[in-house]
Amino acid sequence: MAPQAGFPSVSADESLNRPMFLRQLDTPALLVDLDIMERNLRRAAEYARAHDLRLRPHTKTHKVPELARLQLELGAAGLTVAKVGEAEVLLAAEPPDLLVAYPVIGRSKLERLVAIARRTRVTVMLDSLHAARQLSDAAREGHVEVGVLAEMDVGLGRTGVTPGEQLVDFIRGLLRLPHLRYDGIGFYPGHIRSLDNDGLEQIEELDRLLDATLERLRREGLAPRIVSGGSTPTLYHSHRIRGLTEIRPGTYIFNDRNTWLAGACKLEDCAASILVTVVSTSRPGQVIVDGGSKTFSSDRLTPSPELSFGYVLEAPGAVFTRMNEEHGYLDVRRAGVELAVGDRLRIIPNHICAAVNLHEKIYGVRGDRVEEVWQVAGRGKLQ
Amino acid sequence: MAPQAGFPSVSADESLNRPMFLRQLDTPALLVDLDIMERNLRRAAEYARAHDLRLRPHTKTHKVPELARLQLELGAAGLTVAKVGEAEVLLAAEPPDLLVAYPVIGRSKLERLVAIARRTRVTVMLDSLHAARQLSDAAREGHVEVGVLAEMDVGLGRTGVTPGEQLVDFIRGLLRLPHLRYDGIGFYPGHIRSLDNDGLEQIEELDRLLDATLERLRREGLAPRIVSGGSTPTLYHSHRIRGLTEIRPGTYIFNDRNTWLAGACKLEDCAASILVTVVSTSRPGQVIVDGGSKTFSSDRLTPSPELSFGYVLEAPGAVFTRMNEEHGYLDVRRAGVELAVGDRLRIIPNHICAAVNLHEKIYGVRGDRVEEVWQVAGRGKLQ
Repeated sequence: MAPQAGFPSVSADESLNRPMFLRQLDTPALLVDLDIMERNLRRAAEYARAHDLRLRPHTKTHKVPELARLQLELGAAGLTVAKVGEAEVLLAAEPPDLLVAYPVIGRSKLERLVAIARRTRVTVMLDSLHAARQLSDAAREGHVEVGVLAEMDVGLGRTGVTPGEQLVDFIRGLLRLPHLRYDGIGFYPGHIRSLDNDGLEQIEELDRLLDATLERLRREGLAPRIVSGGSTPTLYHSHRIRGLTEIRPGTYIFNDRNTWLAGACKLEDCAASILVTVVSTSRPGQVIVDGGSKTFSSDRLTPSPELSFGYVLEAPGAVFTRMNEEHGYLDVRRAGVELAVGDRLRIIPNHICAAVNLHEKIYGVRGDRVEEVWQVAGRGKLQ
Repeated sequence: MAPQAGFPSVSADESLNRPMFLRQLDTPALLVDLDIMERNLRRAAEYARAHDLRLRPHTKTHKVPELARLQLELGAAGLTVAKVGEAEVLLAAEPPDLLVAYPVIGRSKLERLVAIARRTRVTVMLDSLHAARQLSDAAREGHVEVGVLAEMDVGLGRTGVTPGEQLVDFIRGLLRLPHLRYDGIGFYPGHIRSLDNDGLEQIEELDRLLDATLERLRREGLAPRIVSGGSTPTLYHSHRIRGLTEIRPGTYIFNDRNTWLAGACKLEDCAASILVTVVSTSRPGQVIVDGGSKTFSSDRLTPSPELSFGYVLEAPGAVFTRMNEEHGYLDVRRAGVELAVGDRLRIIPNHICAAVNLHEKIYGVRGDRVEEVWQVAGRGKLQ
């Protein structure tokens, strides 16, 4: 690739504000290959149907109401969000059902949650009676009923009560609170990061833990209607986890380098990449691109200790060794391609959820055409 | 700290949309202590004046036109940005002078840059004749003159040509290009991360390198009018670097944990913190707060290998050990304080520039009052 002399010619439709072709996009730009994304969505929906699992995708990965709508149209039974602010934005997708998979704490958020519960069926996953009591009070004041999932910790050591006695006591406490509907239990198997032998063993452990937990809850008369779990790495192993009724993958819509290197998808299933431009080649063996930690996020690889920040589609031998805020450092000594200032590259980020959150727009492309431009409407809705 | 029963009472002014008191802010929220920030700004301005240095602060840290305006009012001679999109936003601050400290590549960005150059004096720092020729062409088409700083690499190994022969050749090339104004040279000493003995030695090396470079340029008849360098860690050592005429610190407005642990400020100079709420205490010895990598960024400590993501003002013994997107894990075994769901904490992030970029708003506080609410207007202006 050689730098182009002067500027490329501009044809009539290129003068429109809305870019029509990939070559018209300025950089850095977040691209989604529509063919791959649609295949990812269909495959998960078909898997869920085949195994009689409810698919309630976590929309934190994209934060785009149009994409949430597409997930619903392709068979998702409802949507998941982490934040009340995301739920507000996602109402535009007209979900029949919204799960806030996060404890909602404090008056302001609870008032907003109640307003959402007037517009669609809302469930909150939580792990403390303190949070549950606040929610019950807010639901009473707002004259609504809100569903709850009792969150249990299955190994990540983050949120969730310990399965067993503690879970039983917690659910008994939930059942005593008015205006709450006990929908069941939920968990996030975020400790399973890779589908290597350890990961498959962890999935078997999870199956045994859940089986014992459900047996205990049935014995206590607390049988859950919903058993909600699942992540993108474990997605296509969900049928091995007996008792699971609902899965909440997020990343699967795009996939990313982490998902790929975890063995949970192939490179050709990675729909999202970031288009960047080479801005400096002053140091031999290195090129600098116009995206750094404010474009990709600083998230490292989770399934491997390797320190690198993305996979360069046009130069797989290049190593994305370092970042500053607006600079990406590519070691191109073994890239097998000559790169010059002005050349453009597409890079698959380690963690697409963190990267999307840094962009105002997502460009949906098919071949060299830009077919869609979505606003990341839920970006930065931190509250 | 115990969880409050029910909700705090709401007084009349609390019903306004604009929060008046810290306790009314929902979380996570980015706070700036106005007394500390103003002191940081004044101190840098006074230092620059005392040493006859031009202060051209890098606004990438805050991306707020109102704060850029304040920097100008307190004595900054101009502003620095990394992106054309940031420059467009910063025009609202009416800067007499804008430095884009980044090579501007490609027609779209160059057209926008020329439009900015019609409104204020613009300088671009670049390191390739490819970039310079594109800029010269765009300036000619747009009937403007644009200043250039030849970027030299002083040790970071990122952008910038090698001092010596290469720099001389590059400047000679710049001087041949019409519509460009050779303003001088620039560099970024980002390899100096700490003011330990190594760091002080690096500052001395930089002084010697710059002295030799300026001697050479004068001999060649290429004496620079502007010698622009400096970072927050080196800020108050700038007078030790002979020949420097201009400094471009960014982080100094707020400071952060990196700056503090680098020995470049004190804890009491850290103006920015993130207000979070404890949302789960289900695991003994650990609390989960409602801010993770989408609130703080995943940026690690630069001056130390320690893995932790912030300093908890109310519980300095707590260790911020891990993050997921919306969860922060605090190890509170040695925190010396009991924390309950609903408790609020302020955490100083490792890297404030990356954190600000994740927030829609900055709340300026004095004591328990919220005096200012600024939109982070330049957030996500990646192009």
